[in-house]
Amino acid sequence: MLALILGESAHVAMATDHPPPQRQAGEALVRVRVSGVCDTDLQLARGYMGFSGVPGHEFVGEVIAADDAKWHGKRVVADINAGCGECDDCVTSRGHHCVRRTVLGIFGRSGAFAELLTVPERCLVAVPDALDDDRAVFAEPLAAALHVLDEWAGKAPPKRAIVLGDGKLGQLIVRALASQGVETALVGRHAHKLALAASAGVETFLEKDLPASLRGAELVVEATGSEGGLAQALALVAPRGVVVLKTTVAAKLTVDLAPLVIHEVRLVGSRCGDMNHAVDVLASGSVDPLPLVEARYPLARADEALTHAGRRGALKVLIDGG
Amino acid sequence: MLALILGESAHVAMATDHPPPQRQAGEALVRVRVSGVCDTDLQLARGYMGFSGVPGHEFVGEVIAADDAKWHGKRVVADINAGCGECDDCVTSRGHHCVRRTVLGIFGRSGAFAELLTVPERCLVAVPDALDDDRAVFAEPLAAALHVLDEWAGKAPPKRAIVLGDGKLGQLIVRALASQGVETALVGRHAHKLALAASAGVETFLEKDLPASLRGAELVVEATGSEGGLAQALALVAPRGVVVLKTTVAAKLTVDLAPLVIHEVRLVGSRCGDMNHAVDVLASGSVDPLPLVEARYPLARADEALTHAGRRGALKVLIDGG
Repeated sequence: MLALILGESAHVAMATDHPPPQRQAGEALVRVRVSGVCDTDLQLARGYMGFSGVPGHEFVGEVIAADDAKWHGKRVVADINAGCGECDDCVTSRGHHCVRRTVLGIFGRSGAFAELLTVPERCLVAVPDALDDDRAVFAEPLAAALHVLDEWAGKAPPKRAIVLGDGKLGQLIVRALASQGVETALVGRHAHKLALAASAGVETFLEKDLPASLRGAELVVEATGSEGGLAQALALVAPRGVVVLKTTVAAKLTVDLAPLVIHEVRLVGSRCGDMNHAVDVLASGSVDPLPLVEARYPLARADEALTHAGRRGALKVLIDGG
Repeated sequence: MLALILGESAHVAMATDHPPPQRQAGEALVRVRVSGVCDTDLQLARGYMGFSGVPGHEFVGEVIAADDAKWHGKRVVADINAGCGECDDCVTSRGHHCVRRTVLGIFGRSGAFAELLTVPERCLVAVPDALDDDRAVFAEPLAAALHVLDEWAGKAPPKRAIVLGDGKLGQLIVRALASQGVETALVGRHAHKLALAASAGVETFLEKDLPASLRGAELVVEATGSEGGLAQALALVAPRGVVVLKTTVAAKLTVDLAPLVIHEVRLVGSRCGDMNHAVDVLASGSVDPLPLVEARYPLARADEALTHAGRRGALKVLIDGG
């Protein structure tokens, strides 16, 4: 099949004859309709996790084979964490921390930048007819964005949040927070990207023009991926507030954590979220991700899609047919 | 009055004629019976916070003047955070994050290494007759130690905790956690200090001999104050677990926070706790801090007490009469 391949030494290449994944018992075979390029894919292409094979974990596709006939022909997205299904984390939660898990296109499992992929049926989430492919492909990153609020599960969400970073991750997070009724401000360095967020109803600030009144938010999300982001987040968060780290900055950070102790701040790492919730939010129309799509490429040019996504400041790049 | 003074340039000196603090409306004037030296005092003596005046915030004393007659003659300890009494944090919580607060012997308020001190009456906690001075003086650090569990307020406490650092802070925290029914392990570098904790019923490990089975605790408390402590804590904590930072490491840390995101760990800064709770725990006898007392000095030799407390590996040093 046609696929994008990361080889040894992070070599990126197109293959026309890559062997299709073999469906195991309990798995669905899915024909990919649209996939999306995430910064994690770019990091994998630079050698992160030592991954080799087919990357890609944001997708919407159609089930063409499954043990359970109810899935046949269904449009689906999927939780990318394929847990063992038996451990405590899999049984009581979503298996996102199962130590035996594979992760679609990231760890131990062939991904979505290909004609076909396999995932456990229990990871599938059906896409309602009213939700089109180009929006549904955002389910995975939107689930991760909404997951920021899981820190308030069972409680009222924070009144006010600040998101640092106006890239595609920050753009999606501000929309996710606003959709849940949180008064949200986006801080960035690019006037045109801030304007994009403003058009979605979010208050925006250039990093160099922050008013002192902005300080003291209950939630600050660091989505810049830069070394200075965490220090800035610690300066903006309220005492006993929460700073959420969304990006795995590749390099080690040098940071003064004294403010964390003095102000008793929680610094929380946040990864994947609830795909069902994300599909519901997309289907409700309360988050429209389409303005974040910057370009699209056919699967045969997926390598160009990655190059495009790697350009400084690029927003979402989609891949059709894989 | 007799007092230890931190002057400009962190100069430490005894004074015999230091002016006694002037009691304001709503404050109690307290004659100090016993005080304790904390690492924060040593940091203040090195210039931390730019503090000058009388340091000292761990104390038990006797009220000799107060607006409310019920306090006259009472033995007391006190919350060291003297909030404004009017802001949201003061009204709804304990004022530990009141932006106008003074902090006894640390910020804007003369401390306990003196014959007399003043604190707001609302900060006072009465010491029951059955609780002696040498145990009561541990109320402030024990409150801070117990505060680690406030992350689980309203929920069942964690089953298993690991405390890193066998110094006086770590020693008190393991006793605090064990008193609340948490299965607690102490990791340190000093066999004799680990033996001290073992005698209090805590499991102990030399840092160089950690079994792999120790990994995966729901709570890890970093109380080493060293640069490597946080990285070790992140390696030992369970996915979605909590790492509590108790020490404000003076220097900036260089740390890889990727594990925080991947394992969705919470890193929580923790400072002061509930003095009433600490007094109750001490009075119940479920924590006995006396084995942690290494030396005691009269107030007239408080400067020597600080020098002693600053020796590498010193446990608690008490000061009699101030």
